[in-house]
Amino acid sequence: MTTSEIAPLRLGIAGLGTVGIGVVKIVQRHADLIAARSGRPIVITAVSARDRSKNRDADLSAYAWEDDPVALAQRGDVDVFVEVMGGHDGPAKAATEAAIAAGKDVVTANKALLAHHGQALAEAAEAHGRVIRFEAAVAGGIPVIKALTEGLAGNRISRVMGVMNGTCNYILTRMQAAGLPYETVFEEARQLGYLEADPNLDVGGIDAGHKLSLLAAIAFGTRVSFDKVELEGIGNVSIEDINLADDMGYHIKLLGVAQMSGRGLEQRMTPCLVPAESPLGQLQGGTNMVVLEGDSVGQIVLRGPGAGEGPTASAVMGDAIDLARGCRVPTFGIPAAQLAQPVAARAATPAPYYLRVTLLDKPGALAKIATCLGEAGISIDQMRQINQPGEEDDDAIVLLVTHKASPADVADAMARFAGTGVMVGTPVAIRIEEV
Amino acid sequence: MTTSEIAPLRLGIAGLGTVGIGVVKIVQRHADLIAARSGRPIVITAVSARDRSKNRDADLSAYAWEDDPVALAQRGDVDVFVEVMGGHDGPAKAATEAAIAAGKDVVTANKALLAHHGQALAEAAEAHGRVIRFEAAVAGGIPVIKALTEGLAGNRISRVMGVMNGTCNYILTRMQAAGLPYETVFEEARQLGYLEADPNLDVGGIDAGHKLSLLAAIAFGTRVSFDKVELEGIGNVSIEDINLADDMGYHIKLLGVAQMSGRGLEQRMTPCLVPAESPLGQLQGGTNMVVLEGDSVGQIVLRGPGAGEGPTASAVMGDAIDLARGCRVPTFGIPAAQLAQPVAARAATPAPYYLRVTLLDKPGALAKIATCLGEAGISIDQMRQINQPGEEDDDAIVLLVTHKASPADVADAMARFAGTGVMVGTPVAIRIEEV
Repeated sequence: MTTSEIAPLRLGIAGLGTVGIGVVKIVQRHADLIAARSGRPIVITAVSARDRSKNRDADLSAYAWEDDPVALAQRGDVDVFVEVMGGHDGPAKAATEAAIAAGKDVVTANKALLAHHGQALAEAAEAHGRVIRFEAAVAGGIPVIKALTEGLAGNRISRVMGVMNGTCNYILTRMQAAGLPYETVFEEARQLGYLEADPNLDVGGIDAGHKLSLLAAIAFGTRVSFDKVELEGIGNVSIEDINLADDMGYHIKLLGVAQMSGRGLEQRMTPCLVPAESPLGQLQGGTNMVVLEGDSVGQIVLRGPGAGEGPTASAVMGDAIDLARGCRVPTFGIPAAQLAQPVAARAATPAPYYLRVTLLDKPGALAKIATCLGEAGISIDQMRQINQPGEEDDDAIVLLVTHKASPADVADAMARFAGTGVMVGTPVAIRIEEV
Repeated sequence: MTTSEIAPLRLGIAGLGTVGIGVVKIVQRHADLIAARSGRPIVITAVSARDRSKNRDADLSAYAWEDDPVALAQRGDVDVFVEVMGGHDGPAKAATEAAIAAGKDVVTANKALLAHHGQALAEAAEAHGRVIRFEAAVAGGIPVIKALTEGLAGNRISRVMGVMNGTCNYILTRMQAAGLPYETVFEEARQLGYLEADPNLDVGGIDAGHKLSLLAAIAFGTRVSFDKVELEGIGNVSIEDINLADDMGYHIKLLGVAQMSGRGLEQRMTPCLVPAESPLGQLQGGTNMVVLEGDSVGQIVLRGPGAGEGPTASAVMGDAIDLARGCRVPTFGIPAAQLAQPVAARAATPAPYYLRVTLLDKPGALAKIATCLGEAGISIDQMRQINQPGEEDDDAIVLLVTHKASPADVADAMARFAGTGVMVGTPVAIRIEEV
């Protein structure tokens, strides 16, 4: 029996934007290759999108058309519902639920949907003996869901980190390379079409936070808890701090960290300093990177394109081929009912901090700052005074790198700074993640 | 029904060296975690090694003992034969064949066995409805076999590259960091226990060549062809070239490249220059890195520990958990009978070359070299003369970076150099791989 005689796996594709069309192109271009690898053909039987009349970069004439993705999801000639519409409510959610209820497996690129409704959807899928696969939802073409759920399944995972929003990394690395302020580069990115319709999804860290919450669920066997992710975007990262951090051997990244310790589960998506010579520190432009740490394997670093037609469609097809091969892994790696309710850590793991304070050029000003740190229980690893040539030469910029401190102690020190009477403006504190 | 009520997957472990004991430790330490992830318990029922009396760092008392790995492979209470003995013939081969004949799946860390006998073993496994999984055989803990065989299965792969022998990368980066010659660092590595009993497996590129041949088979759907790998070890890499290349922005790596083009299949494991600031160029010490390039996904870079108890055992367990979950992918990604006999490329893809020539300090010497290059059809991208302070100040070292040239043209130029009468010693030519 040749593979062409075996029943094909039939995809219904909901959403014909960049990713959906990318999937169509791969299925058409590599039909034979995919059939050989899957052991059976993978075909598209039906598609759905809002506007049928729109001109699209692929021949869709062989596929049935549905205006309604729910109708697509329920078709008898669809085995796998491919959800590449986006949006965490509305049609994407309704159609995914309908697909599961109709006994279909789901392949989705929708991080927002899973971040908000992952537990309920996973439970529903399992109740119907189906799975949801979502490689395309996290870090684009990088097979990180597979690496974490399958490749490292023999490990207790201790930490997952990553740069998972290419637009933010583009903005930060472009600011540094060109010496431009945030606002200017943000505007460049907007004009280049790099930003979501709601830019806060990117620069506010929300999109990357969605991804982090999915990785955390798999890594630690816990229910997706996007609402417990500490989120801080890049809008307050200044070119001044980028440059000063660079001088001290660090780069600033919008870094996601999910970590399980005796404190509980920490999930942070915040600007952090990382050593400039580390893999994360060296990451330029829109590329993504995910770091996985397990008790046996040590540290694995995965790097690749985090978005775009080809990479995202590649991830969708990887999932479809798994299903065609009969590889069916539970949505978050273990049965949904066994996922634990995570105990959110009350405080983040202590870390060194980068502090920038501007002081009035008064005798004893620096001593007052040092005293505040001491009173907050924070010891100083490095201190450097920057003498800026300029008009306001009464002010002195002081950079400090602390030894490990808790966020609460840092907040305490910042409050004490305010009472010294020597501060100019607001001090800056940025966590230095040890990578 | 809880997972503990489902039939366990029973492993028989042949080989109780570092890797075998690492597997035992993971199975013992993470029994519950693995059962939750696999949907069923994974247990060890029997083990085998040469010397039962040897003191080992794990409690083996619960497992049946077999002196003969073939007997282990044939036990009725073993579902998966875990081959972590090593060696490409002898007991490892006999026991693997016996396991397949007895209807067992095989998980192996044995790159040499598969590089030499992969096709026959894969065919035998498929004839018995079994699979051979070998994540641990390539790049230790990095889940690269999974990424290539499954995650990127929707791509036509164009090139696979990698630094896949940690000992060689340790030696090369240590030479550079300490400014020491090869012989000194080789001896250090030997004393640190980094070298195989036959060091040529490491420094001759054979071990890394085995790994490359396995990646190439998956990437291009071709039969494993280790005998077609162009192999050159690191024994001739001089500290002088490491330093001079560094000055020009390159690092020297033992780089594996498998590439499919209109020329056919190229497989090379040779010292190459790569840009110092590239991920491959930045790789320090014993860490491994594999780069996968596909038509949709673009470039994916995977980095992690390439050897050691924990990482290698992690890879073995990932395979075992796949089997417990029912994920059964053909050994090389497609059925063995469909693997094509590769057409080896008659010539490597053209690349820039680094050339180092030492010339007598005679008028017109440099012009003669440039003429030779022109006659060989090679154009010059950069040229630099190094004036070395020293005793033999009649000689001049000239470094050249060429534009893309074929290896045959480079060989032609080198032959022409010999006829100029201005050469001192033997010129050096090293390929610059574009990464």
